[in-house]
Amino acid sequence: MQQEIALMPGERIDDLQRQGMRIIQRENGFRFGTDAVMLADFAVAKRGERVCDMGTGTGVLPLLIAARSVDTTFDAFEIQPDVADMAARSVRLNGLEGRIRVYCADCRDATRHIGYESCHLVVSNPPYTAQGAGLVSPERSRALARSGEYPLDAWIAACARVLRPGGRLCCVFPAPRFLQLCDAMRGARVEPKRVRFVAARIDAAPKLVLVEGLKGGRPGLHVGALLVTHREDGSFTDEMRRIYAE
Amino acid sequence: MQQEIALMPGERIDDLQRQGMRIIQRENGFRFGTDAVMLADFAVAKRGERVCDMGTGTGVLPLLIAARSVDTTFDAFEIQPDVADMAARSVRLNGLEGRIRVYCADCRDATRHIGYESCHLVVSNPPYTAQGAGLVSPERSRALARSGEYPLDAWIAACARVLRPGGRLCCVFPAPRFLQLCDAMRGARVEPKRVRFVAARIDAAPKLVLVEGLKGGRPGLHVGALLVTHREDGSFTDEMRRIYAE
Repeated sequence: MQQEIALMPGERIDDLQRQGMRIIQRENGFRFGTDAVMLADFAVAKRGERVCDMGTGTGVLPLLIAARSVDTTFDAFEIQPDVADMAARSVRLNGLEGRIRVYCADCRDATRHIGYESCHLVVSNPPYTAQGAGLVSPERSRALARSGEYPLDAWIAACARVLRPGGRLCCVFPAPRFLQLCDAMRGARVEPKRVRFVAARIDAAPKLVLVEGLKGGRPGLHVGALLVTHREDGSFTDEMRRIYAE
Repeated sequence: MQQEIALMPGERIDDLQRQGMRIIQRENGFRFGTDAVMLADFAVAKRGERVCDMGTGTGVLPLLIAARSVDTTFDAFEIQPDVADMAARSVRLNGLEGRIRVYCADCRDATRHIGYESCHLVVSNPPYTAQGAGLVSPERSRALARSGEYPLDAWIAACARVLRPGGRLCCVFPAPRFLQLCDAMRGARVEPKRVRFVAARIDAAPKLVLVEGLKGGRPGLHVGALLVTHREDGSFTDEMRRIYAE
């Protein structure tokens, strides 16, 4: 049940290559990146779970996760009004208003909208600069650079507040800041339990890391296989093809 | 200038395949493992540096590192008298008494022998059970299981005490306990700065991690390329061949 959705100047509709899903993005600027697609694959939502996306941007995470999970519902927070509006239109474009709700709000105020400990799973692509990552769009980088008022600890604490005891928090972050992310999680009583590093080539230093923490969990980390994005000839690896085509 | 060295029952002499170096090991039991060889490659001793090995076992780490560094000297601690004696005989076997000194002593008492903040580099293969590692010999596992009085924090603190400000601590540890190792290091004011995960195959979960910390260092981690030990056909990868043949 797809509707006609108005596009703003500079916007276009892209195919998400998943069950006919589409997404609105800006032609020069705000677009989702490989990091979001990998996080959507890494974070597994179980049937009927309530999921929160902190800093949803284009809305790509709820859209991708909704496409491969059953009876899940999503609360997605985005502080920039024009971006939140774009995400909300993408949700309507796919007829997913019944499952995904976009809030134009500060993540730190999420409990006002959805309450404490309301979600089974929180996903977040927290603000980070392109330094060491290389996968963040210039426009997002600029926006994030402006939002210097968001220290990582406060961001992760906001994620933890809406998470049920035993709930999971899944993030993607620059690998060089892995320990800082772990510190922030643990400071919010979310114990890192599962991690995958992401490298552009088999023999390259990983630039990103995917981390799943468990609220109230005990120490003990499962380090998963390295996620390699590209072959030597520059094409996607089989795993990246699976992640994109899923 | 190699000497005739007495062997104890059950001991044999193995070729270290490095500049004619040899090492005494027990035929059924106490032998160095792949983890030690990888740690010797990961820890780089600069010319003239003073290096300490905490829990030297067969003495393999000082022997291997001495073979590829210049004017370095080593203080190696081993608490088990028969094992310390075996390591000391391996040192004499290679005519390295002038560079490597083996102490039969508790690592926690190392400062009594070599003083505080005396070393540029500390290497250690800390006691850990075979759980999740699979590279520790049964005899060592049993010995370590008996030495339950060695909590990781105390072990790492002992390493840190002999380390100069700005000195490096290099360890190998089970990947699932990576964060506990980082916690222990940071508790001793040694900041993890460089890390390499080790996997048996490209697509396997890493079982070990190599970590270098800097005493008094600032946060910021370089995650190096995954160290893959074996090819699909079970043979060593090129990198492992380089590490073994270096």
